Amino acid sequence: MYEMAIQLRTDSGCCLYEQIYEYIKKEIRDGKLLAGEKLPSTRSLAEYLQVARSTVDYAYGQLLGEGYIESRPCRGYFVCPIEGLFRLSANENSQAKAAPKPRGFGAAYVESGITDKRYQVDFSPYDIDMSGFPFGVWKKITKNILTYANSDLFSRGEVQGDYELRQTIGRYLHSSRGVNCRPEQIIVGAGNDYLLLLLEKILGRHVRIAMENPTYKRSYRIFQSFAYRIVTVDMDESGMRADKLWQANASAAYVMPSHQFPTGTVMPIGRRMELLKWADGEPGRYLIEDDYDSEFRYHGKPIPALQASDKHGRVIYMGTFSKAIAPAIRISFMVLPEVLLEKYYRDCAFYSCTVSRIDQSILNEFIRDGYFERHLNKMRKLYGAKHALLLECLQPFKAAFTISGENAGLHLTLTAKKEIYEKELVKQAYEYGIRVYGMSEYMREVSSDSMTVLLGFGGLSDEEIKKGMELLRKAWM
Amino acid sequence: MYEMAIQLRTDSGCCLYEQIYEYIKKEIRDGKLLAGEKLPSTRSLAEYLQVARSTVDYAYGQLLGEGYIESRPCRGYFVCPIEGLFRLSANENSQAKAAPKPRGFGAAYVESGITDKRYQVDFSPYDIDMSGFPFGVWKKITKNILTYANSDLFSRGEVQGDYELRQTIGRYLHSSRGVNCRPEQIIVGAGNDYLLLLLEKILGRHVRIAMENPTYKRSYRIFQSFAYRIVTVDMDESGMRADKLWQANASAAYVMPSHQFPTGTVMPIGRRMELLKWADGEPGRYLIEDDYDSEFRYHGKPIPALQASDKHGRVIYMGTFSKAIAPAIRISFMVLPEVLLEKYYRDCAFYSCTVSRIDQSILNEFIRDGYFERHLNKMRKLYGAKHALLLECLQPFKAAFTISGENAGLHLTLTAKKEIYEKELVKQAYEYGIRVYGMSEYMREVSSDSMTVLLGFGGLSDEEIKKGMELLRKAWM
Repeated sequence: MYEMAIQLRTDSGCCLYEQIYEYIKKEIRDGKLLAGEKLPSTRSLAEYLQVARSTVDYAYGQLLGEGYIESRPCRGYFVCPIEGLFRLSANENSQAKAAPKPRGFGAAYVESGITDKRYQVDFSPYDIDMSGFPFGVWKKITKNILTYANSDLFSRGEVQGDYELRQTIGRYLHSSRGVNCRPEQIIVGAGNDYLLLLLEKILGRHVRIAMENPTYKRSYRIFQSFAYRIVTVDMDESGMRADKLWQANASAAYVMPSHQFPTGTVMPIGRRMELLKWADGEPGRYLIEDDYDSEFRYHGKPIPALQASDKHGRVIYMGTFSKAIAPAIRISFMVLPEVLLEKYYRDCAFYSCTVSRIDQSILNEFIRDGYFERHLNKMRKLYGAKHALLLECLQPFKAAFTISGENAGLHLTLTAKKEIYEKELVKQAYEYGIRVYGMSEYMREVSSDSMTVLLGFGGLSDEEIKKGMELLRKAWM
Repeated sequence: MYEMAIQLRTDSGCCLYEQIYEYIKKEIRDGKLLAGEKLPSTRSLAEYLQVARSTVDYAYGQLLGEGYIESRPCRGYFVCPIEGLFRLSANENSQAKAAPKPRGFGAAYVESGITDKRYQVDFSPYDIDMSGFPFGVWKKITKNILTYANSDLFSRGEVQGDYELRQTIGRYLHSSRGVNCRPEQIIVGAGNDYLLLLLEKILGRHVRIAMENPTYKRSYRIFQSFAYRIVTVDMDESGMRADKLWQANASAAYVMPSHQFPTGTVMPIGRRMELLKWADGEPGRYLIEDDYDSEFRYHGKPIPALQASDKHGRVIYMGTFSKAIAPAIRISFMVLPEVLLEKYYRDCAFYSCTVSRIDQSILNEFIRDGYFERHLNKMRKLYGAKHALLLECLQPFKAAFTISGENAGLHLTLTAKKEIYEKELVKQAYEYGIRVYGMSEYMREVSSDSMTVLLGFGGLSDEEIKKGMELLRKAWM
């Protein structure tokens, strides 16, 4: 077991958990703690350091959140192998101290939109452009709502969300995504994570769920926390392989047909039909369609949602406004097939709505009065331009990399043609102060032979994109 | 099996599910459908009526939500026995049509603060007085927040809730409730229901939970949906009986020591110590303290929370701002003992916060700048006056009823001294257009020999209280 030679300064302003956190982070960065190495249990470390166990818990929690360490059930904490960039010389450690105090934990940190100061340019696939957010309109609507707010607006309201908002969402989904549903099928909730918690109550806990590999890590972790049996199904250029899905013996499949994360694959209609065929193959089979960023498509005509082709009520459709408007708008929605409504009424109808009626009213007006559409078009244009710029900057890379996901979304993927592993690419980029994201982060088992990285552009300015790509060129070519 | 002679009008404006809903409701009210009677399955009724099954689902959903019918797992739908008032002559049926379109389902409907127009006065124990809500201040703060809002405020933020808000809540809890905790222990979420969902992930799903009988039905239903083993523990005048708790072989106990719902019992320090002793008796035992309306205490000095006496981290403390401020403020919080933090970090840290940072900032300012305290004092005074008025109006009842819960909260309980059953009391009150709530609604098994009713006053004006009590006098004496 690895011995920790940490000296805690009780005098200094830096509090205890932060010292432990910084120390272990440094140890990992400096390669003194190697990938796969086991950390002392929080209990034993607390005893060893003579501090409260919670102090160590908190430090470990932050390390977990930032992906330095991982916890393996019943086995303890281990140093993460995934991030090549964390095993560099400590020369950037001084900067590290300047890094913002980590906030939150888990994926939430990575996705919190707080860019890591250690990087000049961070090609985060999670960041979005807030400069486009119509603060003015939002404030105006909010002000109006509050001005005419009566106590009714401050009451609890309907558990599924206000009927009016559900009507508005229904209309929007129909016109923009071809989704067919009645407002009665729509459940409004504060974020997809929450809606998935409800879905667990509806589908029950003995679900064997199929996920694409790679997939969206957050949903993966959430299904894990349900103790769902997760089977990963390989993808081809059309997305989840239907033949493998049939073999997977699953009762549900989580897919992102409009724009798979992280690969960016758009599922062609043929494959969609195969998936629907699978769902129809046995009663109780469902497809969970996460339509997280379908709004942003730049080439070719928009492809309707999978739910639109669903004739037998096999698709559970999920969407969010956090991506299209702002992460702070904690409003997502789930469209249940009619067959699941009874279960919802019976098992979830007493869970009160997690979105305040005020926020619901604001969003309702924002969509109803056409601001949302205008905002979407604006953002599509804005992201489209960045997307085009990034593709242009990627020209010189085409010899050495295969570029994909070029039709939609807020990120692209690069796959090295000759043998350069992801870890190398991430590390080389890091040495030039650029953060790119290794595909293997999104795989079930971290594969050491991935040669693909993600480049997100949503949160970057044109200048940052240009600068970042220039430095990547130096780093990689 | 009961035959349904319903004629669906496809022409009329009234849509199909509503016709089915109204028809069955009337059948139950008119006593044509008797308590315990089994309803046709949604499938068979749909076939019989030649409508979509979902239409029947929706109608049943509303009947469920309003407590007309109940669903017994694997057995189907049955007419509820609990509400005497529903088995009256149909003379009020015309009015029933005038009743507002039911919203939401389950307890959420009952608690939605939408008062039933069929009553002149509704002594709902759930309603609160919104007239006292400081709209002005709230609007001002909101406006300021939005004016100085930067994109950071629209980012996702910390999963536990913004650190600043947690600090503020921590300070408030310490000063007002004697709760001892660090901000790191506080988890902010959109409502208690959501926080309980998180708690399930933390405590795991194999929990045998002890609840008082009677108890808060919403929490009961939620624990049921977790498939927790629920054991009800009898109460005496001090609350949950410790000796029975020891026998219950439970790993967790859900209690409301400051003001038990619905009995209004305030748990004395002695019993609190016994409960803490139980929790200390074995590792992994926890007390879930729901401090839902502790703010409103009118006599005697405030009693600190159970958590304040907890020396060994056995109490999970829960509170909400929905009751003290407004139901629309969907912000609750949970204080985890240090020992549970690691589990939280490991199993829940990827669930992003369900409250928008904007709402968090508004609440933070509202508390930090002293508005909350002022509001609480105002409401305490306001509710205190109503409470006093109700007690005064209850003088003539003292001969026939035992009155309890007179120290705190937004409702009182009346227990008949001579043998008049709850059902009778509710029915007699109903005949005078007054709604009172039978205690048995909150019991695990509906007991027919309850002689206790609840009188809530939070949402009533002085006039309504006087009028209501006058009519109750005619009804009961």
